[in-house]
Amino acid sequence: MNKLIFEHPLNEKIRSYLRLEYLDQQLQENRDEDHQSRCFDPLFSLCELTERCDYRGEVLKDLDRQLAQWSTNDVPLIASIPDPISAIKQSRSKLKIAERPGIRIKHDRFLSTLRQRYSMPGACCNFDLPQLHFWLEKPWPQRQEEYQSWKAQFSDLLTPIKLLLAITRQQSHYEEQSATDGFFQAHSEHPLSLVRIKLDPINQCYPTISGHKNRYAIHFMQFDNQKHASENIPFQLATCP
Amino acid sequence: MNKLIFEHPLNEKIRSYLRLEYLDQQLQENRDEDHQSRCFDPLFSLCELTERCDYRGEVLKDLDRQLAQWSTNDVPLIASIPDPISAIKQSRSKLKIAERPGIRIKHDRFLSTLRQRYSMPGACCNFDLPQLHFWLEKPWPQRQEEYQSWKAQFSDLLTPIKLLLAITRQQSHYEEQSATDGFFQAHSEHPLSLVRIKLDPINQCYPTISGHKNRYAIHFMQFDNQKHASENIPFQLATCP
Repeated sequence: MNKLIFEHPLNEKIRSYLRLEYLDQQLQENRDEDHQSRCFDPLFSLCELTERCDYRGEVLKDLDRQLAQWSTNDVPLIASIPDPISAIKQSRSKLKIAERPGIRIKHDRFLSTLRQRYSMPGACCNFDLPQLHFWLEKPWPQRQEEYQSWKAQFSDLLTPIKLLLAITRQQSHYEEQSATDGFFQAHSEHPLSLVRIKLDPINQCYPTISGHKNRYAIHFMQFDNQKHASENIPFQLATCP
Repeated sequence: MNKLIFEHPLNEKIRSYLRLEYLDQQLQENRDEDHQSRCFDPLFSLCELTERCDYRGEVLKDLDRQLAQWSTNDVPLIASIPDPISAIKQSRSKLKIAERPGIRIKHDRFLSTLRQRYSMPGACCNFDLPQLHFWLEKPWPQRQEEYQSWKAQFSDLLTPIKLLLAITRQQSHYEEQSATDGFFQAHSEHPLSLVRIKLDPINQCYPTISGHKNRYAIHFMQFDNQKHASENIPFQLATCP
């Protein structure tokens, strides 16, 4: 079993970015493999989040900030992105002319009917949504293609967010730490955006993290009884500005 | 592509049974294959439905009614159930002593925390539910075993429901019909519980069915534009008492 990585945002923006990145991963999984009606969950979650808040302005500002910073500093090496400057420039120009994400899903009659009922318990039943039953009987390659076109409606927003998170993550390295009696806290002089923890699953526990900007606290909880760990827990910690 | 089967309940009881049967199929799929956090959806839907309504009394009454009927009539042959009488007696005696379905899931700390957040958009994110992240990193055979134990908490209720629906379905046979201009309606002298439609997907449409007890109407809708079909649609129809 590999080490587990837990992340926690220390500001609202990174919180939103992590949530959107998570939904992007879910979309990708549903695009690669047939998960039947389960595939609609991240699609409708993304519709909901992008209707509540238009993230485009914030993301564009972040991309500009990043480009300005790199014009004065050396551009860092990022394993997953061979040429970060052109990647940022490219995603920035796409996002600048992008329509509001999810807007075409909202106007799709099949998807909007589905979405209205989707969150009710057991609502994907044959008789509630016969159109879904029809769709699910289409051959997978055809559904996969349609899913790809729905997924693509979010890519102008999600591509730069994944890029910004990759840049944030590589700005820090893991250091060995220990949580005395399952507890650890620290503060930083510079504001932080993201706390990352690497943990051996042999400890049979997970961290619950709280904090804001300069301060954070980590409580390790035992999975089996969902209670606070009482022993010292070794872990690796990275804090990203 | 096989023919599509659409079903529609004509009373509230069968409506509930079909919904519970659908969720049982979902549980089974999630038990057989690793669907990650998506597996919790039918589990929590079942919790919600069985909290709202205790189906046990109704199901027991139906089982008794079925046994009484068979003591006067011949027991029908059901392909999927070799010995219907003993199957009914067995599931009846299990359900009689069963605790309320889902009650142990309600008191499971891991599951109840998960359930509180589960329906929020993107809430299965790493930082929202670190305990879920921990659970998902367990080896699949171990998660499968745990899932089986959660699923089992509903089996005393779901097994007789599947049995009753199998008996209902075999009480009728398909007959050829045609919907003029995409519309068909009929009535029956005896109350009906279930309408079943078999349709060739080549028609590129699905039925929306409405009705209650003795009467029902079927509108065929084109999938591509979600509008009423204007041509005659051939289909097969079975109506179950």
